Amino acid sequence: MSDLPILTGHLAGFEDTIAATREKREELYKWFHQHPELSMEEYATSQRIEEVLNEIGFTVTAVGKTGKVGVLENGEGPVVAFRADFDALPIAEDTGLEYSADPALNKMHACGHDMHTTALLGAAEALAKHKDLWSGTFIALFQPGEETGAGAQDMADSGLADKIVKPDVVLGQHIGPWIDNYGVGALAGPVFATCVQTKITLYGRGSHGSMPHLSVDPVVLAAKIIMSLQTIVSRGINPQDMGVVTVGAVHGGDSPNTVPDSVEIKVSTRAYTQELSDKLNKDIRRIVRGECEIAGCDREPTFEIVGGAPVFSNHQAPTNTVMAAFNEQFGDQVGDFGRLCGSEDFPTIAEAWGAPYFYWAVGSKQNIAGEPYNHSPKFAPDLDPVLDLTTRTILVGVSPWLMSR
Amino acid sequence: MSDLPILTGHLAGFEDTIAATREKREELYKWFHQHPELSMEEYATSQRIEEVLNEIGFTVTAVGKTGKVGVLENGEGPVVAFRADFDALPIAEDTGLEYSADPALNKMHACGHDMHTTALLGAAEALAKHKDLWSGTFIALFQPGEETGAGAQDMADSGLADKIVKPDVVLGQHIGPWIDNYGVGALAGPVFATCVQTKITLYGRGSHGSMPHLSVDPVVLAAKIIMSLQTIVSRGINPQDMGVVTVGAVHGGDSPNTVPDSVEIKVSTRAYTQELSDKLNKDIRRIVRGECEIAGCDREPTFEIVGGAPVFSNHQAPTNTVMAAFNEQFGDQVGDFGRLCGSEDFPTIAEAWGAPYFYWAVGSKQNIAGEPYNHSPKFAPDLDPVLDLTTRTILVGVSPWLMSR
Amino acid sequence: MSDLPILTGHLAGFEDTIAATREKREELYKWFHQHPELSMEEYATSQRIEEVLNEIGFTVTAVGKTGKVGVLENGEGPVVAFRADFDALPIAEDTGLEYSADPALNKMHACGHDMHTTALLGAAEALAKHKDLWSGTFIALFQPGEETGAGAQDMADSGLADKIVKPDVVLGQHIGPWIDNYGVGALAGPVFATCVQTKITLYGRGSHGSMPHLSVDPVVLAAKIIMSLQTIVSRGINPQDMGVVTVGAVHGGDSPNTVPDSVEIKVSTRAYTQELSDKLNKDIRRIVRGECEIAGCDREPTFEIVGGAPVFSNHQAPTNTVMAAFNEQFGDQVGDFGRLCGSEDFPTIAEAWGAPYFYWAVGSKQNIAGEPYNHSPKFAPDLDPVLDLTTRTILVGVSPWLMSR
Amino acid sequence: MSDLPILTGHLAGFEDTIAATREKREELYKWFHQHPELSMEEYATSQRIEEVLNEIGFTVTAVGKTGKVGVLENGEGPVVAFRADFDALPIAEDTGLEYSADPALNKMHACGHDMHTTALLGAAEALAKHKDLWSGTFIALFQPGEETGAGAQDMADSGLADKIVKPDVVLGQHIGPWIDNYGVGALAGPVFATCVQTKITLYGRGSHGSMPHLSVDPVVLAAKIIMSLQTIVSRGINPQDMGVVTVGAVHGGDSPNTVPDSVEIKVSTRAYTQELSDKLNKDIRRIVRGECEIAGCDREPTFEIVGGAPVFSNHQAPTNTVMAAFNEQFGDQVGDFGRLCGSEDFPTIAEAWGAPYFYWAVGSKQNIAGEPYNHSPKFAPDLDPVLDLTTRTILVGVSPWLMSR
Repeated sequence: MSDLPILTGHLAGFEDTIAATREKREELYKWFHQHPELSMEEYATSQRIEEVLNEIGFTVTAVGKTGKVGVLENGEGPVVAFRADFDALPIAEDTGLEYSADPALNKMHACGHDMHTTALLGAAEALAKHKDLWSGTFIALFQPGEETGAGAQDMADSGLADKIVKPDVVLGQHIGPWIDNYGVGALAGPVFATCVQTKITLYGRGSHGSMPHLSVDPVVLAAKIIMSLQTIVSRGINPQDMGVVTVGAVHGGDSPNTVPDSVEIKVSTRAYTQELSDKLNKDIRRIVRGECEIAGCDREPTFEIVGGAPVFSNHQAPTNTVMAAFNEQFGDQVGDFGRLCGSEDFPTIAEAWGAPYFYWAVGSKQNIAGEPYNHSPKFAPDLDPVLDLTTRTILVGVSPWLMSR
Repeated sequence: MSDLPILTGHLAGFEDTIAATREKREELYKWFHQHPELSMEEYATSQRIEEVLNEIGFTVTAVGKTGKVGVLENGEGPVVAFRADFDALPIAEDTGLEYSADPALNKMHACGHDMHTTALLGAAEALAKHKDLWSGTFIALFQPGEETGAGAQDMADSGLADKIVKPDVVLGQHIGPWIDNYGVGALAGPVFATCVQTKITLYGRGSHGSMPHLSVDPVVLAAKIIMSLQTIVSRGINPQDMGVVTVGAVHGGDSPNTVPDSVEIKVSTRAYTQELSDKLNKDIRRIVRGECEIAGCDREPTFEIVGGAPVFSNHQAPTNTVMAAFNEQFGDQVGDFGRLCGSEDFPTIAEAWGAPYFYWAVGSKQNIAGEPYNHSPKFAPDLDPVLDLTTRTILVGVSPWLMSR
Repeated sequence: MSDLPILTGHLAGFEDTIAATREKREELYKWFHQHPELSMEEYATSQRIEEVLNEIGFTVTAVGKTGKVGVLENGEGPVVAFRADFDALPIAEDTGLEYSADPALNKMHACGHDMHTTALLGAAEALAKHKDLWSGTFIALFQPGEETGAGAQDMADSGLADKIVKPDVVLGQHIGPWIDNYGVGALAGPVFATCVQTKITLYGRGSHGSMPHLSVDPVVLAAKIIMSLQTIVSRGINPQDMGVVTVGAVHGGDSPNTVPDSVEIKVSTRAYTQELSDKLNKDIRRIVRGECEIAGCDREPTFEIVGGAPVFSNHQAPTNTVMAAFNEQFGDQVGDFGRLCGSEDFPTIAEAWGAPYFYWAVGSKQNIAGEPYNHSPKFAPDLDPVLDLTTRTILVGVSPWLMSR
Repeated sequence: MSDLPILTGHLAGFEDTIAATREKREELYKWFHQHPELSMEEYATSQRIEEVLNEIGFTVTAVGKTGKVGVLENGEGPVVAFRADFDALPIAEDTGLEYSADPALNKMHACGHDMHTTALLGAAEALAKHKDLWSGTFIALFQPGEETGAGAQDMADSGLADKIVKPDVVLGQHIGPWIDNYGVGALAGPVFATCVQTKITLYGRGSHGSMPHLSVDPVVLAAKIIMSLQTIVSRGINPQDMGVVTVGAVHGGDSPNTVPDSVEIKVSTRAYTQELSDKLNKDIRRIVRGECEIAGCDREPTFEIVGGAPVFSNHQAPTNTVMAAFNEQFGDQVGDFGRLCGSEDFPTIAEAWGAPYFYWAVGSKQNIAGEPYNHSPKFAPDLDPVLDLTTRTILVGVSPWLMSR
């Protein structure tokens, strides 16, 4: 057992339930871990979540393809939603853990969503068992498809805001080897980057490889565009701002000896503000369109948005509120999460309701130096103490709204 | 019937056979046309060729996968080889001809090899039926796989020079809409370009798309290389020389959001001399290796030769000899073929024996303006008169060696 | 008269001197403003500074070409150095101010160094007149050549540390329209960027413009390098880090019709850490050398450092100390200066002694929106209240060391 | 004395004059050689030419700044013009010849125009002394400013066609180490390339080097354009065609640390046809304009034609006529001149009248291997036999028109 601090003060009463459900939560975690399902195909996981929610007395509503929302009303008071995600990644696990998923599945909970889900079910059970310790309404929201950015949108588009009462705040958390000693924390403002993913098709004109003058060479065109796109970040943005333009894929042609008709490139952008994100993507389109025109393409290039993530900027008020509670309960364990260049679709859930939000990080390792990051086939949080810790962080996080001192 | 000139003088005696075999040759041509087979898979075509050769009294030797060589000895005298190719292309025919190949086959004799083969079988039969008009040895060589550059090499590697007597000269011809009014002709020196086809793999280092600094981005590397390769032709070769560097394919990455580990590019070069071809390919390798080193690739790029064609330069002596015979027989019909940037593996056959060679062109149309070129789904030679003409050109071409005046 | 707060508490005693010297300081400021001198040619300015220092009782030491250091000992106690710069820029003033420098001079105090110098002379006089209010040693350091980065280095190289007693802390300030309402402040850590300026010569091989194959074309080489340098920032640095690579100049060739022998490019880099600055410059050299090798240059490129600025990162302890004093004296006027991408050679002075340093900003305007920045021909601080304010900020800044409460 | 063949048959009668004027021509040649004058400043040379023409009985007309045209009428018959050029180059002679120009002049007849002029004066004198041997009219045209392309245009613009009777043919010649053994010859069709020289200014928007996002960086823009221009030749022209795009100069910016406002590039093109030349220049403008638009330049780029040369394609009829005369008189000495990528403004003279033209080459050395080319500071034709030979080639060249057999 880890010797991290336990809940104290007006939250101390939850500790008995945490102890009582530990074994159950560990089994649940291992079951999720060994049954990874890809984004928007999480049927078994979704069903298992629903079973547990029913068991512990939540009213369950299906929202979207595999999303589930459990609601527990407990008298007068604020409404707080906590969101956990539950999809896995197309990665063959290589942790060697006794409870590893079968590498042959080529699917793995390499981003810790299994922990997020278990923690939320654990906190939900603690709240269900200790109605004496709080009042208000708690919404346990389980979101699929975070990795592809499709899940939150699917829930929002499927009537989340109509079906479920609007919360006063939406909270969430993510584990990873980012803060030493299982640290807990986050800043107000940008935490993740907004991402736009675009598939671009360049239409040249093919020819025999020995007659380039009869072609509009889309391979050279793509090369020019890729080099030109570099200047968006190198020259076009304030050096103090974070901005990324990545061409992740380029595909065109079969034979060394034939100029192909078209080339496809896939581009993603990252920024902390909608304004900069829009500028990056506007620049991409201007460059692509302009180079196609210079090249003399008969047909305009096409742009298809194939994925993305919203601006993610923690609201100031709930940040202050939750961080004060964290400071009180976790003391020195509170750390600085910083900003990530990666993305998260959590804000889409909060924005469906028009509710303020705060999202924090929980360290998954005692020493983070050299630890494999999320999305590594070797990613592995320390079951003890993270299983309990992430349950506690939810209880502390919701406490300013639901629990009187 | 076309009113093109027929054979006269000491070759006039062949005209009766040409007339007598016309119907047979037309049937044969249509059969070949309707049974197109891709390079190195020409089993039915090869068998049909062998049947005809046996029928008309040639000794047939299989050389390589589908190559066939028919030999007819006729007393003392020089040995002359004539080569015809017989593979088709992966193109769906769109000529609308009554004898069109089924477009559903997605295979087509769009380069006229069916005509080359029919003409050689026709000339072989004329020689077999008129042993009185010539003396020496005639080799009718049928080569597969010209389109991929694999066929001549396969025959050379399969012991052509050991199995078949060395000829004093090797001749060949190609039809196409290049010279008006079914013109006949060629120059000494370069006619086709030598081609080298290389598959190059660039090994970068992948990363999440939001963390480019952890990557060695092979997409940007490929773009730099492709732009840099343009300078080989624009700055590196004598502007008077023909040289081409084409990047026909570029492939790397799946997701817009992930820097891939590697990118593959396929490059082909064209030149009229071995020296320039070597320079182009040396330059390519220097640029690719240099850019990979600058980029900090952990692993060197790999280069795999995946195809090509030899230097093709008609020898002066047989050019003079055959062109004199053409001038005598065809008069005003003799035209200027020029040089093509395309390639042909015919020299590989001649070089297997170490024999001199000459290769000429025959116009496939009366007016060539606007005619679809070889490799077009609409390519279509005029059956009359090209069927007879290409038979006559072979007889005239071999006449300086085999037929006394 | 501005209604900004005046000095209070244990510093209130200096206010009489501030009032008494106002007219003198204004005359001094206007004299400096109307006598702008370019970097390392500030002979008249340097002499005027020396005269004033002598007048008010400082011991003056010349350090380097035009640098002057005044020292005032006043019993036991800490030693504090304050640095002001005094060179002007090659800009024709366009402020239309009654005390504008003659635009025909094409020289202007467009960066506010005239104010820095006047403020330091004013604070020095206040300290000289009120020896009763403090004890210790005050060093008034006047540095030339800040704009070119040559001045601090010149003083350091000319024995500053040997000639002048080592201070416990080195302080400095800069005015500009950066913080509203004449705000005062700065953060610990990076404030300005380190800058490295390099002149690079690429040696190709010239030729007649019609014979590119006989050349190694340095124009195309320079273009490749410039495009390649873009990837240092777009792909090579952490998107969260500030890094800049600017090619500010490119020169080569005379005639449209001749490939020149060489091209010269001038590059500058910016970063907040020495490590990143080193990486940027290492990348530049690797790319330049690599491209020259690929191009086949007979002679290696040359790199000449032609300017630069050090890492500028306010030390934590003096930042805390001074900011506490600012908060006490200036209250709501304390603001956030942020980080600039520009550079400053102030740290070179502190590092000559190995002393900790803190450098703050003072707002030059009430409302900064739309205000012309430093280096604009229209740059103009509000004489009232900035003349007094910048004198007060020095007194407050040195107070934690020199003035007992 | 060289043992090259002398004139025979109906031209044999000129040999006495050639022998008689040899010493005079040598002196004249050495005087021209030692008095080199730059293009359009050939005042002394022009005057000397006029003196000689007057001496030998030609009617002299000044045409343009320094051009001179001598006319000699000799009864009925065709009119033939022969053009010689007489400007020198800004090169310091390094031949070490006894009659070298003073290297300190930094001017040199490094292209052989001194020989061209001497030969024409020699031939003119031969014609003047042997009116018995020919009939018709001979025009000896001396053109300045060939090296800059300004001279022929100046004569055309100054009324050449109005002032001087229209010839039936215009002839010219050039010496150089191009054909072994003092060979004489040329082909019909393209001999020199047409050249267009353009100065292009790119207008970006300057900024401090640390704030690239406030700039439109014309240095990066110029680099993109230069790289893009490479694709005109590498992809845009038939690989069989000669085409050159050279960026001979690029200039922009002063400081490493400032993004400049503009960059100037100077481009030249070469081609053998007007059509291809027009395409190259149209492509350049499309690329430059397109890239400026993509970059967001506030102001359009400007294009200024700063020089050039016309299409130079020997007319078929006079080529056949003169080459037949060369073959008769010079036999084995007739060689193949090939095509040059360089340029000549000779056609502008012929086109001023609308007359057909032929221009040939004369070898300046016995063995050309390793010989310094024209425009080298070591360029040196063999005085003997080139002085006589180039006089004879003119007499032979004009003979089909002026001398009955």
